[in-house]
Amino acid sequence: MKMPSETMPARLLRLFGFCLLATALLAAAARAQTLPLPDNLTDLNSPAGEKYFAESGALVTYFSIADHFVTQKTQAYCGVASIVMVLNAAGVPAPTTPEYQPYHIFTEDNLLDERAEAILPQAVLARRGMTLDQLGALLALHPALTTEVHHAVDGGLDTFRAAARDYLASKDHFVVVNYLRKAIGQQAGGHISPLAAYDAKEDRFLILDVARYKYPPVWVKASDLFGAMNTADKSNDDKTRGYVLVAKIGGAATPAPIR
Amino acid sequence: MKMPSETMPARLLRLFGFCLLATALLAAAARAQTLPLPDNLTDLNSPAGEKYFAESGALVTYFSIADHFVTQKTQAYCGVASIVMVLNAAGVPAPTTPEYQPYHIFTEDNLLDERAEAILPQAVLARRGMTLDQLGALLALHPALTTEVHHAVDGGLDTFRAAARDYLASKDHFVVVNYLRKAIGQQAGGHISPLAAYDAKEDRFLILDVARYKYPPVWVKASDLFGAMNTADKSNDDKTRGYVLVAKIGGAATPAPIR
Repeated sequence: MKMPSETMPARLLRLFGFCLLATALLAAAARAQTLPLPDNLTDLNSPAGEKYFAESGALVTYFSIADHFVTQKTQAYCGVASIVMVLNAAGVPAPTTPEYQPYHIFTEDNLLDERAEAILPQAVLARRGMTLDQLGALLALHPALTTEVHHAVDGGLDTFRAAARDYLASKDHFVVVNYLRKAIGQQAGGHISPLAAYDAKEDRFLILDVARYKYPPVWVKASDLFGAMNTADKSNDDKTRGYVLVAKIGGAATPAPIR
Repeated sequence: MKMPSETMPARLLRLFGFCLLATALLAAAARAQTLPLPDNLTDLNSPAGEKYFAESGALVTYFSIADHFVTQKTQAYCGVASIVMVLNAAGVPAPTTPEYQPYHIFTEDNLLDERAEAILPQAVLARRGMTLDQLGALLALHPALTTEVHHAVDGGLDTFRAAARDYLASKDHFVVVNYLRKAIGQQAGGHISPLAAYDAKEDRFLILDVARYKYPPVWVKASDLFGAMNTADKSNDDKTRGYVLVAKIGGAATPAPIR
């Protein structure tokens, strides 16, 4: 019987390939605290994510919000977690809580008062989360801040990119986005999280995803993010999702120099 | 009556100086979510803090732990918060909780099981926090990790600096420090938090302080931090405080190149 000379090496090669694949899968499984990312999204904690960060020159802008990164306390609390991050990052005078006496900080437990209840009853929040307009209205309760709600349909990609880029380069300025996860290849519904940086070279924004049990912070193309915001929200009279621009009154309006 | 010619300008100058001072004090007060820092500590979210970060070349190492930054849930939970950050950063297989079903993540509520209770009863933890040895023992419950407890007195500053620097430059390697706050000019007692970066030029480590209601992340001189670890802990038989080196089994032992 004649055996083709390449058979054994080919088999070995296939076996080697299989081992490599198995090793990669095992490594992924061992780390699988979060869901896998589609190719269009880049984990901040990766060589490419690091490169985009260095390109973005964000640093201080990034730190001001990342120092206050929290996980949403339930699967409906993405908006609450995002508001808490912005208020603490802006240094808005905060209430205290029994566990932190005498210190003051906004938490997902002490944020919602009777004024918030009038905008969004906690029973509704627990069931359905919050809409873009409710997010804006809850932020606007704080007189130390200016708040602008922008539905994606009211402006194009260029308007969003320019505003978000300028805010992310300015001290005490913040951007919170409301987008449809499945439009950027994530699972699955509407979501809210703060942005933390912009990389002009890649035209990508960094989302600090508050569902940390589900996804890491990701760099997303501006056009992909805009497309995911430009989607109808049936909980909000089919208006499109969008973004909220927040600035601390007295915060530097001129963009910080891009380094 | 003769009036000296410089009186009015001098008065205006004093008034101007007073206004500047008042403005600065008001700005500080409006932001006073946290306590003021002594001169030897540098806020990460400041121009100097940013400079040290850029010098450190930390990026991926920093992100792996900062992406999981949490606030200690009570004033006794600094050790619990630090362990949660390390376990999530290392991707150790986590339990789920009712609010995050079907996702898995370590939280300050689901970390402590009956094995932890045998090491440190929750009633004791709630009253006194944890010691360096209890911190090490709780981390050592996880077979995915190697854990080394180092009391400061057992090695000098150089030993600590070299080990912490190498760990902070290696993937899936972490350093948790236990130090006396008042020895670095903070208020006041023993504290535990993870390190996130090392800036060789300034010889400073970055502490991600889990008491976020009280202090921001700070860059501290290696010698100051070592001095604050080299203090007797009366809750731990007067042994000195110190640090725990944690590595994920299979994590890259070779330091990543310093950029």
